[in-house]
Amino acid sequence: MADISQTRPLTRSSVKEAHELIKPHIHETPIDTSTTLSKLASTPQSPEALKGTIYDGQTPAKPKIRLFFKCENYQKIGAFKARGAFHALARLSDEELEKGVVTHSSGNHAQALALAARTRGVPAYIVMPTISTPSKIAATKSYGASVIFSGSTSQEREAVVAEVIERTGAVLVPPYDHPDIILGQGTMGLELQAQVEDLLGKKPELGVRHGRERRHEGLDAVITPCGGGGMLSGVATALSGTGIRVFGAEPSFEGADDARKGLAANPPRRVTTVKSLTIADGLRTPVGKIPWKVISNKDKVRGVFAVSEEMIKDAMRLVLERMKVFVEPSAVVGLATVLYNEEFRRLVEREAGEEGWNIGVVLSGGNTTVEAIAKIFAAPTESAERAGGVLGMQGERVAENVAG
Amino acid sequence: MADISQTRPLTRSSVKEAHELIKPHIHETPIDTSTTLSKLASTPQSPEALKGTIYDGQTPAKPKIRLFFKCENYQKIGAFKARGAFHALARLSDEELEKGVVTHSSGNHAQALALAARTRGVPAYIVMPTISTPSKIAATKSYGASVIFSGSTSQEREAVVAEVIERTGAVLVPPYDHPDIILGQGTMGLELQAQVEDLLGKKPELGVRHGRERRHEGLDAVITPCGGGGMLSGVATALSGTGIRVFGAEPSFEGADDARKGLAANPPRRVTTVKSLTIADGLRTPVGKIPWKVISNKDKVRGVFAVSEEMIKDAMRLVLERMKVFVEPSAVVGLATVLYNEEFRRLVEREAGEEGWNIGVVLSGGNTTVEAIAKIFAAPTESAERAGGVLGMQGERVAENVAG
Repeated sequence: MADISQTRPLTRSSVKEAHELIKPHIHETPIDTSTTLSKLASTPQSPEALKGTIYDGQTPAKPKIRLFFKCENYQKIGAFKARGAFHALARLSDEELEKGVVTHSSGNHAQALALAARTRGVPAYIVMPTISTPSKIAATKSYGASVIFSGSTSQEREAVVAEVIERTGAVLVPPYDHPDIILGQGTMGLELQAQVEDLLGKKPELGVRHGRERRHEGLDAVITPCGGGGMLSGVATALSGTGIRVFGAEPSFEGADDARKGLAANPPRRVTTVKSLTIADGLRTPVGKIPWKVISNKDKVRGVFAVSEEMIKDAMRLVLERMKVFVEPSAVVGLATVLYNEEFRRLVEREAGEEGWNIGVVLSGGNTTVEAIAKIFAAPTESAERAGGVLGMQGERVAENVAG
Repeated sequence: MADISQTRPLTRSSVKEAHELIKPHIHETPIDTSTTLSKLASTPQSPEALKGTIYDGQTPAKPKIRLFFKCENYQKIGAFKARGAFHALARLSDEELEKGVVTHSSGNHAQALALAARTRGVPAYIVMPTISTPSKIAATKSYGASVIFSGSTSQEREAVVAEVIERTGAVLVPPYDHPDIILGQGTMGLELQAQVEDLLGKKPELGVRHGRERRHEGLDAVITPCGGGGMLSGVATALSGTGIRVFGAEPSFEGADDARKGLAANPPRRVTTVKSLTIADGLRTPVGKIPWKVISNKDKVRGVFAVSEEMIKDAMRLVLERMKVFVEPSAVVGLATVLYNEEFRRLVEREAGEEGWNIGVVLSGGNTTVEAIAKIFAAPTESAERAGGVLGMQGERVAENVAG
């Protein structure tokens, strides 16, 4: 079968091995902090923001949160997917690889696989729907990949992939539903943990001092976006046993919160179909089978939370305008959860208490266009106006009761 | 007279003194590099891009350029203006300052002065036109400044400023036409020089090796945007005597290229009025009297170049989509010059030869909004489509003959 091998166990030490293999090929992406956003996260939402939710009329949560952003938008190809692709290929011999690799993707995985294949000097065949945007087709071709068009349904795409394998003998490298991809994505978790420890060690003022004792010398929690679940399950695998809690975040629009729903079912079961046009276009996929095993393990992933399109837009505006960091909508669902999901905020208030938590937030990628941003923000929304009005453009001081 | 003192000479050592004074208050902003943009800068423009210019029909220049971006968008308040404001205030005693400071500005200088005043614990009075955007008013207020409204003409603004001085005894801190402001802005030049030397020392592969000898261990040139001229004259002062050539860049739209035109006049003379609505809204001002003395000195500023609105848009797209760095339009006129101004590119080809130049490009600020970006990029322009099509979205490989 022309598929990559499936032998590594999903453990922290496998992620460490993966990290050694891919280090020469990927960036150790930087950690950003933002006083403004940490203050905003530590400010209760306005009572109005809770209207129409089950928290309506209750006192808004007041968690204490210090944010550490893992900027995977600065990763090679502009998104974390480079990690998984390089790792999957690193696990294959030159012989296994000589006929090339194939996948179906119109997004970041396509570019990641194309780059990894070029680095190994083997052909990459990328099956993309005919309706893909010209910029994504051009980007994938720019890494030297052969783009092969298909229809838009998963059946049509898979038929074309099968045909390519038949014709070329290429090895299939799936975007998320494979241990080597999961282990590769998990490497960001190792970096994030070490970088924040380093940062807090060097700059103790960023940590919390409790009386005369310094308590927080590292992360208390990490939150990542969840689409197919490769990143979330990888980071959870990487941080397993460290005491750092791992959370996932999804868009709620049109049922893209399949992981959250699957976990809430009794008994929990994987949702296998998603048809959502959420603006977080990297997260329109259901969680894959192998990621689901990790995500549904309470010891590995503490919970998955969902946010609305407006919350994603508001969080994206903050990252662009305040942090001056260019991100795609999918990248900010973790931050949107921290800022606007009252259930998550209550959990932090309850568990972190007065001391608060250091939360690592993964900004997963930056592959969007100015036209896409124009489309998202062309008509100012009421909440955007409100946030802009209350906060100003650059203010470090944050008014109380900023709405979500 | 309620104005800040004017005693420091405009020399490199004065800039070094300014740097020592403001270091505790400002960020040493990072240097970014981009293989993609350096390759693009080293690729000749398409013959079509030269149509209608005096270079029409000639062979496009092929300069060799390695780019080093000074990211002042990550400076406090989101722009370089914090440097000048902190320096101007550092030069005043608590006694001189006790009645506060005043300026007229609707832009970055307003926020910079408000922050510097708050840090010193004195009031800031900011005179803004009634028609200023609500987000800018809110941003200035968020730093604790008192915003006072005026009409839009310079006479109306100055009348209100005079009235505030009369009433409060506040000290006037102008946005650019003052030695202490110029010296403050110049501090970025010192950092840029040292950071690039450090970077090239640590990573020799970024420098050029010529035979067995390493030639380039630092910058050959720096280019900054030029509006009122505080930054350009400050950087030129800072780098005076170092051998690093300093250039300025302006928008050509509706005569915003007043410095270029003034220098081209015979004899050179300062243009005192500009009425331009260029998208580079920080650069709609004529060069001030004191900056002009530096800018018109050929030993300090080698030349000033102008770029079209389309070139600014194309450069901004590249910085956002490729570098993932959020900038305002004014910030990219230097990069636009390097990529698309054929006169500048010929100069580099001629002077730098085979070895090429290491060029420091100042990205001066990032204070814009998603709505402003939506307005600029809502309708894709032909050149944008062309650039996107040729380059793809993330490609590190750059096709030849990319259009400007």
